Amino acid sequence: MYIAMNQFNVVPDREADFERIWKTRESFLSEVPGFIQFALLRGDKPGEYVSHSMWQDKDAFLAWTQSEAFVKGHRQGESLQTILAGPPRLATFQAVIEETADHRHVDESQPDAARQPIHG
Amino acid sequence: MYIAMNQFNVVPDREADFERIWKTRESFLSEVPGFIQFALLRGDKPGEYVSHSMWQDKDAFLAWTQSEAFVKGHRQGESLQTILAGPPRLATFQAVIEETADHRHVDESQPDAARQPIHG
Repeated sequence: MYIAMNQFNVVPDREADFERIWKTRESFLSEVPGFIQFALLRGDKPGEYVSHSMWQDKDAFLAWTQSEAFVKGHRQGESLQTILAGPPRLATFQAVIEETADHRHVDESQPDAARQPIHG
Repeated sequence: MYIAMNQFNVVPDREADFERIWKTRESFLSEVPGFIQFALLRGDKPGEYVSHSMWQDKDAFLAWTQSEAFVKGHRQGESLQTILAGPPRLATFQAVIEETADHRHVDESQPDAARQPIHG
């Protein structure tokens, strides 16, 4: 499993607008290969949000960023630009251990494997 | 859905030790009420890790932190203390939108609802 988190800081008192814009957007994610789950997360500090997506692997995430679904998802509706306190910050993660109530998976890749940070 | 992320910074060249300690621990999470998924995530910067857990709601997460399963899960095995560059930093998140290939859920709580940051 691979997780991409895009971190947003919303200017004071515009959180409700930020959430409304996301709620009225279509994500176009449901048919993207390797897509598992999307969530918009509200942090515990005012104005702090994370766009959180889970993928089968890094390749699935990268392929989505190059896809028509990505372009369609990002050009619709109202712009977020005037309600953000700065550019979003992308962080990506590889699951080393994954566990649910009835399943546990351990990834055998090594921590010192070559990493290519993604800037977004 | 509620997500708790505990962020770790591992001192240089100890990443493999950090992962080994986690892989040999038992989480005791599988029977905790409201538990959905745990993952240990490796970030894209060296030494950056996140202990990432998903819960049905905030109350389920808080109840776990007060439970015997939590105590058992945290007192076993080798200590992480000497391989961390500082204390872990906890951040928690409420899902506003949640979407999988065949399901979409929108949370109707308001962003300005009273928030009680958790320090851990």
